[in-house]
Amino acid sequence: MHLTRLIRAYDNDVQEQPQPNLLALTDTAKSRADGPERGDAARNRKKILACAHNLITNDGVDALTMDRLAHCAGVGKGTIFRRFGSRTGLLLALLDEAEKQLQHAFISGPPPLGPGAPPQERLDAFGAARLKFLESHGDIQLAAERDSTTAVSAAPRLLDHTHVTNLLRAAGVTHHPHLLAMSLVASLSAPLVLYQVRAQGVTFPELHDSWRFHIECLIRS
Amino acid sequence: MHLTRLIRAYDNDVQEQPQPNLLALTDTAKSRADGPERGDAARNRKKILACAHNLITNDGVDALTMDRLAHCAGVGKGTIFRRFGSRTGLLLALLDEAEKQLQHAFISGPPPLGPGAPPQERLDAFGAARLKFLESHGDIQLAAERDSTTAVSAAPRLLDHTHVTNLLRAAGVTHHPHLLAMSLVASLSAPLVLYQVRAQGVTFPELHDSWRFHIECLIRS
Repeated sequence: MHLTRLIRAYDNDVQEQPQPNLLALTDTAKSRADGPERGDAARNRKKILACAHNLITNDGVDALTMDRLAHCAGVGKGTIFRRFGSRTGLLLALLDEAEKQLQHAFISGPPPLGPGAPPQERLDAFGAARLKFLESHGDIQLAAERDSTTAVSAAPRLLDHTHVTNLLRAAGVTHHPHLLAMSLVASLSAPLVLYQVRAQGVTFPELHDSWRFHIECLIRS
Repeated sequence: MHLTRLIRAYDNDVQEQPQPNLLALTDTAKSRADGPERGDAARNRKKILACAHNLITNDGVDALTMDRLAHCAGVGKGTIFRRFGSRTGLLLALLDEAEKQLQHAFISGPPPLGPGAPPQERLDAFGAARLKFLESHGDIQLAAERDSTTAVSAAPRLLDHTHVTNLLRAAGVTHHPHLLAMSLVASLSAPLVLYQVRAQGVTFPELHDSWRFHIECLIRS
């Protein structure tokens, strides 16, 4: 099922008006929705993403400048900007496959992350999955979330928010579940998680343990 | 009491090693700590801040470019950068007085925000005070917090975190109070609060109500 429809289904499920930003997917997803890419455009895209991946793997995410990327992929900088909109768009495209895997896992995969388990167990599994995602892709996610004003309304963040809101409601939380969900999802943002891990010496298992306790508190009340 | 000492006192209180970033105050505060400013430097600083305030009041925070500011204040751009370090440093300096008032209020002011009230009441008052701060100074705070990687470790945010951690502990929360505090404080960040208010139609009273319920849940458990 296409991601746009998944998000729409979620919107209908929680019986709220779709937020204008909720359907603004990454540039990659948008261009896919418009129809199949032409062969040379698809090849260029693949080459740009492969070069970006290599640059980041070898020299870190700060090494990903448009100049170096254009040189490596043998295209003009204009091509990269037309294709991905911005550096952030490119970074989100790099995470696109991993992000889609995670989204499909929590929307329609096996329990406890997917449907079939009690909502509290699904919330627990969701926190664990997002933390694991950050453990694997933290640097790229951090760079993609650098601008905090766009990060709060990025499509993956809003889908997470809808998912957590739904599960809180299903677990019987009736007092502002959408606001509590916003706070819970914010606690899984890359800048916050990686600051705690890297500057404060917090471990990923501690963050998961705290997440579990946090949702227990909200559901028990 | 000077803010640096206030933060140190807090550090000792929670018996943790001071974080390197915890004592990194705004440039303004740092330069003050180094000694009194020379008369002409103080006058320049005052003029720059007054012009910045006027530009923002008249045309919004996006109108605050270094070119316009230098022209208005009759100084070179270099003077502004030497004085405030960056645009973010300048924005934080603009909030400096209001920020210090709030900090002194929750550290040593009258209850329920200051000492003397039960910790749960103080946490409630703290959330209300931060939300009121954002209602008054949201646009400047939003611009100052735009870079999410520096926002998570800005001195005011870390002082908030220490304060909330202390109050959770005082209220009997023993399970990861410092991680829960990080999540609570993140829920009061300018990008998140203003996104909810402006794009999702959430009201400040609803955010305060949710904050109150949230801390009740954590303390009751």
